[in-house]
Amino acid sequence: MAQIYDRVALIGLGLIASSMYWAIKRSGLAGEVVGYARTAETRATAREIGLCDRICETAAEAVQGADLVVLCVPVGAMGAVAAEISSALKPGATVTDVGSVKKAVIDAVGPHIPLGVNFIPAHPLAGTEHSGPRSGFAELFDNRWCLLVPTDGADAQATQKLRSLWEGMGANVDEMDAEHHDLVLAVTSHAPHLIAYTMVGVADDLRRVTDSEVIKYSAAGFRDFTRIAASDPTMWRDVFLNNKEATLEILGRFTEELFALQRAIRTGDGDHLHAYFTRTRAIRRGIVQAGQDTDAPDFGRAKAKG
Amino acid sequence: MAQIYDRVALIGLGLIASSMYWAIKRSGLAGEVVGYARTAETRATAREIGLCDRICETAAEAVQGADLVVLCVPVGAMGAVAAEISSALKPGATVTDVGSVKKAVIDAVGPHIPLGVNFIPAHPLAGTEHSGPRSGFAELFDNRWCLLVPTDGADAQATQKLRSLWEGMGANVDEMDAEHHDLVLAVTSHAPHLIAYTMVGVADDLRRVTDSEVIKYSAAGFRDFTRIAASDPTMWRDVFLNNKEATLEILGRFTEELFALQRAIRTGDGDHLHAYFTRTRAIRRGIVQAGQDTDAPDFGRAKAKG
Repeated sequence: MAQIYDRVALIGLGLIASSMYWAIKRSGLAGEVVGYARTAETRATAREIGLCDRICETAAEAVQGADLVVLCVPVGAMGAVAAEISSALKPGATVTDVGSVKKAVIDAVGPHIPLGVNFIPAHPLAGTEHSGPRSGFAELFDNRWCLLVPTDGADAQATQKLRSLWEGMGANVDEMDAEHHDLVLAVTSHAPHLIAYTMVGVADDLRRVTDSEVIKYSAAGFRDFTRIAASDPTMWRDVFLNNKEATLEILGRFTEELFALQRAIRTGDGDHLHAYFTRTRAIRRGIVQAGQDTDAPDFGRAKAKG
Repeated sequence: MAQIYDRVALIGLGLIASSMYWAIKRSGLAGEVVGYARTAETRATAREIGLCDRICETAAEAVQGADLVVLCVPVGAMGAVAAEISSALKPGATVTDVGSVKKAVIDAVGPHIPLGVNFIPAHPLAGTEHSGPRSGFAELFDNRWCLLVPTDGADAQATQKLRSLWEGMGANVDEMDAEHHDLVLAVTSHAPHLIAYTMVGVADDLRRVTDSEVIKYSAAGFRDFTRIAASDPTMWRDVFLNNKEATLEILGRFTEELFALQRAIRTGDGDHLHAYFTRTRAIRRGIVQAGQDTDAPDFGRAKAKG
């Protein structure tokens, strides 16, 4: 694949940034990739494992001369980082991010983008429960979606280049506006994460059921919740605090429905339960058909055998 | 492996029974395996795919001369099936089941077990979102737990034989009493399933987010919920109606905790959220260490690529 940017700067070196580095290298999408992380420890790890062509000691140094700057820090840190790099940005450069919420990031970062620099927020819908510079891998974005959320007046050519980069890293790209993005993600990601965190917390609290029982017998359904609930705590704290409105709206609807189902259980209304469960089955089929999950009977877990 | 039973009868031919058949054949654990299913359609499918050595037209016929009878029907149908086979059971035979709740099954089946027949309830913690006679596979129970719930005065030798069968099919076996089983499963399985069903239902209801968006962007967390929420509607209706008390208790605790986290989001209490999410991460590590899931970064889903 052809090179898209001469120099890319990755600010923050966690799961997403490290996966971007390996995906960029896999297809030769950039001439040079420089990186920066806030802690000396992460910078040392990056140097040790060969993550990035060059690791800089400050964010401002990293963005100097970069054609594309990718903010890969938790949503709550985006504004401060943008302020730090603002005056060092190259005229004509593009700034993007990978945050899981978009309205709050635009509000926090937008004011620090100088005239002549493009700001094109983005959100790759990919992840694992692992975090940190060692957790990345080139295939993370393959066949996953990346949502671009161009702000008003965003340069069409700059948007097209960023789209090409994400496609080059294996992703499918869609565009939507920030408000709709935040609602869609509240449904498909933010509310499910909070619910999974809650359920795992409940299990952990229950004195009459021991931790070892919860762990041993997790394959019965709970296991999938624990995977979600193992995601990075800082990242997720920031997501909820910065997509408050949409998340609380969805959780409100969730609680309503849960109460209705609890009532059906209490009153023994089997027809209500059966009809509800039949309806939810159809959505699953759609996801498998859309290629966003495997239909393998063991979910590819046979390899986990002890 | 040595043959454990001369003749096994599988009553009900869904995911669990069909997987048992293939697992028994894989290791030669029984001389003959006969099967029965309520509908002519399922019996025809079983004959077509070679499921069971012999398919009978009635449950009573299937259990005749069987050393082990396995009730593999939904929990709500266990009592009626037990009544149907009661007088045809061979003296000295063992009756077991694979139901997801145990107290209600013991109450429903127990009265139909004649003197001289052993009743040893069981529950294999294994499954997929698929159901029906075509969905079984020999590896389903490999490295999964099967819980035996022997009733008072159960014959030790009969319990040991049933344990050997499950171990021969690849499972690890534990014993516990019925009440504790139902509480543990409410935590690790029943409550998580109801929660997943609810969340998928909410997503499906939301008019401002289209179905195709929910499906396309499911990889962000929602996907794992849809897998759980695609499980067999009849089986799960019966589980909730028959483990009402424990499930409602856990759901009550869940709602309490969810409200506390919602409040933390609303008031911007990031410390509370961060501490909670850090705690839930530890449980996940325990599950991976216990060999009940894979730690592979893509959860074995790379093969799902379109």
